[in-house]
Amino acid sequence: MNLDRFFNAKRVAIIGVSKNPNKVGHVIFRNLMDSKYQGEIFIVNPNEKEILGKHCYPSVLKIQEKIDMAVVAIPSEIILKVVEECGKKRIKNLVIITAGFEESGNTKLKEDLLKLLKKYKINVIGPNCVGIFDANTQLDTIFLPRSRLKRPELGGISFVCQSGAVGSAILDLATTEGYGFSKFISYGNAINVDESDIIDYLAKDKQTKVICLYTEGIKNGKKFIETAKKVSRKKPIIVVKGGITEEGKKATLSHTGSLAGSAEIYFAAFKQAKVIHAETLEDMFNCARVLEKCVKPQGNRIQVITNGGGYGIMSTDAIIKNNLKMAKMSSSTETLLKRNFPKIVTVANPIDLVGDATTERYRISLGACLKDKNIDILLVVLLYQTPLITPDVVDVVTEFNDLNKKPIIVVSTGGEFTQVLKNSLESNGVPCFTFPENAVKSIKKLTDYYL
Amino acid sequence: MNLDRFFNAKRVAIIGVSKNPNKVGHVIFRNLMDSKYQGEIFIVNPNEKEILGKHCYPSVLKIQEKIDMAVVAIPSEIILKVVEECGKKRIKNLVIITAGFEESGNTKLKEDLLKLLKKYKINVIGPNCVGIFDANTQLDTIFLPRSRLKRPELGGISFVCQSGAVGSAILDLATTEGYGFSKFISYGNAINVDESDIIDYLAKDKQTKVICLYTEGIKNGKKFIETAKKVSRKKPIIVVKGGITEEGKKATLSHTGSLAGSAEIYFAAFKQAKVIHAETLEDMFNCARVLEKCVKPQGNRIQVITNGGGYGIMSTDAIIKNNLKMAKMSSSTETLLKRNFPKIVTVANPIDLVGDATTERYRISLGACLKDKNIDILLVVLLYQTPLITPDVVDVVTEFNDLNKKPIIVVSTGGEFTQVLKNSLESNGVPCFTFPENAVKSIKKLTDYYL
Repeated sequence: MNLDRFFNAKRVAIIGVSKNPNKVGHVIFRNLMDSKYQGEIFIVNPNEKEILGKHCYPSVLKIQEKIDMAVVAIPSEIILKVVEECGKKRIKNLVIITAGFEESGNTKLKEDLLKLLKKYKINVIGPNCVGIFDANTQLDTIFLPRSRLKRPELGGISFVCQSGAVGSAILDLATTEGYGFSKFISYGNAINVDESDIIDYLAKDKQTKVICLYTEGIKNGKKFIETAKKVSRKKPIIVVKGGITEEGKKATLSHTGSLAGSAEIYFAAFKQAKVIHAETLEDMFNCARVLEKCVKPQGNRIQVITNGGGYGIMSTDAIIKNNLKMAKMSSSTETLLKRNFPKIVTVANPIDLVGDATTERYRISLGACLKDKNIDILLVVLLYQTPLITPDVVDVVTEFNDLNKKPIIVVSTGGEFTQVLKNSLESNGVPCFTFPENAVKSIKKLTDYYL
Repeated sequence: MNLDRFFNAKRVAIIGVSKNPNKVGHVIFRNLMDSKYQGEIFIVNPNEKEILGKHCYPSVLKIQEKIDMAVVAIPSEIILKVVEECGKKRIKNLVIITAGFEESGNTKLKEDLLKLLKKYKINVIGPNCVGIFDANTQLDTIFLPRSRLKRPELGGISFVCQSGAVGSAILDLATTEGYGFSKFISYGNAINVDESDIIDYLAKDKQTKVICLYTEGIKNGKKFIETAKKVSRKKPIIVVKGGITEEGKKATLSHTGSLAGSAEIYFAAFKQAKVIHAETLEDMFNCARVLEKCVKPQGNRIQVITNGGGYGIMSTDAIIKNNLKMAKMSSSTETLLKRNFPKIVTVANPIDLVGDATTERYRISLGACLKDKNIDILLVVLLYQTPLITPDVVDVVTEFNDLNKKPIIVVSTGGEFTQVLKNSLESNGVPCFTFPENAVKSIKKLTDYYL
């Protein structure tokens, strides 16, 4: 299934644009006008002549130009009439925002819509979704206002989300935290484009490095396993499954109308499909950042470098609890470090550069550990509260990371000063965490994927 | 042991203030000058006459006034001489920043210091610590600059920390996230004031509502169990133990010189002492916020209210996984809500107020659930991305929370807009979380403590 026109549409129609600025169609229109989208926008509303200075068509049939994709934001009562018109106009790609199908018990409407889609060979993302967003083309059909939900920078994560609220809240958070996205797809009821179709498409999308999926229920399990198995060889897929307890499953029914199935069946399917199963959305995005940014590790032996002893201890505990290994540095590394450091520095694993650690001590340790064949991964604790660490430690870590030799993951806890340096490291391609436990959990997913 | 003079000292001496602005003693002096501390400050350095316009004493013995507490930031080589002078000057309370004792293999120095402390009946916090901070008196002896480590607002959490780096990094983070503190105590090697003495003192401190402890090794286990057992009846104690794996334990030796002991012994001791055991620092502070802010719950039946279906499902999963219960609302509540809400709203558990949820829908649900005897705790998901939720929803939640009837915990995920409203709810006394799983984990600790 070719979904390319959804994201690279040159001409987009928005059907159901009201003059009321609170209405969904209006918000979508304004969002798209405010974005850097370069294509042409057409709006449809039989009751208006013009909205925000833009000519209003009474129906898509009255538009002369070929339309690549249309966004449908109208009441469910007139959905069949509008889709029929789209069919006649030969619009092959629709994002249907409209809700009120099987999730509200209206399966008849769903069946009727499905017949129309078959008749006109139309692909639909949705219905009952919040829209899609492409950070490259800036095609934005998300119905939530930009003042409330920021749009992310361009990056390597694509997020496929059954629940609109989950998708948009996470997108908003991730944007603030500086994650880069390629595509965001809220797929709602998945009437004829499902998670597998989207994953298959994203496999071919060069910008996408990591695929994240939040699902409450996969209807075609066989298709999913086959697709995911194939795709995960090329790029990692991380999945969070909502509704894994009996009580949670019940709640999915009234939400996306999904039959959630038993958790065990899902977990087995994820294993078979070789997807990475994250327990929570937080874990998913932590893991996504590490997989997006880090090179393939050659093993699971981790060296910890820290300027806070307690953080070294907590990191060690986390490494062992996650069944990873503490590296044992070679004797030449040990000799080199001991020669260069004052006695108070502990040269072991963790390397404790102690409270008066300088940027230079980090440079020396990082350089030596990157060369050491007994070390596969570097976990670097950088606590910026001590005055001798200068902000250019960010450049030092970045330079070593740019060599693309071994995964380097940083942990920094702190306030504003810390946050600035963390953001700058992140945007230089180094994943940064607030706590050692989250960092190590993500390293575990990284080694599980590659090794 | 009365530690009151450490925090309420009227006259403080800082011993070892250099002219060099990067030196520890100098930073402490400047920090204290920059704080709102109302007491008198004396500085000691035999080589200087004046620093930053302040007269420099060659020794504490030359100070005329009575000194309540002294901060010692000098090289370990002259520690005995300086402490002897403090003894002669009858200073009974010392915070010793200086390192280089048993953690560096110098047990002889430790023994000699201990003899002096006995001789002069001096209480020491430290050595090998980063200092103490009292948010009420603003007495600040932390040796990290205020530009790098922000000091927190006044609040109900007291943090007792063996590792200085852990303490200061967390203090910095917590301040940025708006947590309020009463006292911060980095106790390092605990030469004659240990974690139990501090906990015992904090039990009597009215400002302290929750005690948090990070420890790598407790030397006197029996004393700890007895103290904690007694104190935890009055207020909750939350503990994180660093060095719970064999490898982690090894690392504690070179850090605070602690013999970490087996994890099982610690866990058993924590259970016996009725302290709350948190796995990570993140869990500790999540739990502390909930315990500081929430009233005692009458049971463990939770009602979820959400405007995002997916969040309702994830919350439900988390509640069940944490062995808590989904509340079943009474039929009168159900009738009332169904009468007031459009059909699209799901009146069950979770209550799904759906994407067009208004502030009014939250008001009605919160009011009804607070009255319902089948409900003990409210977990409220507030996703601010949808335009019909007005910022005054913060006032609505706050008003209900101020009734002090049931614990109310909020979950909001998002960017800047969300963050502003979250901060405002937090400062109104409502604990807010980014993800449902963390919120529910903390609710579990709350019910475990009270029920």
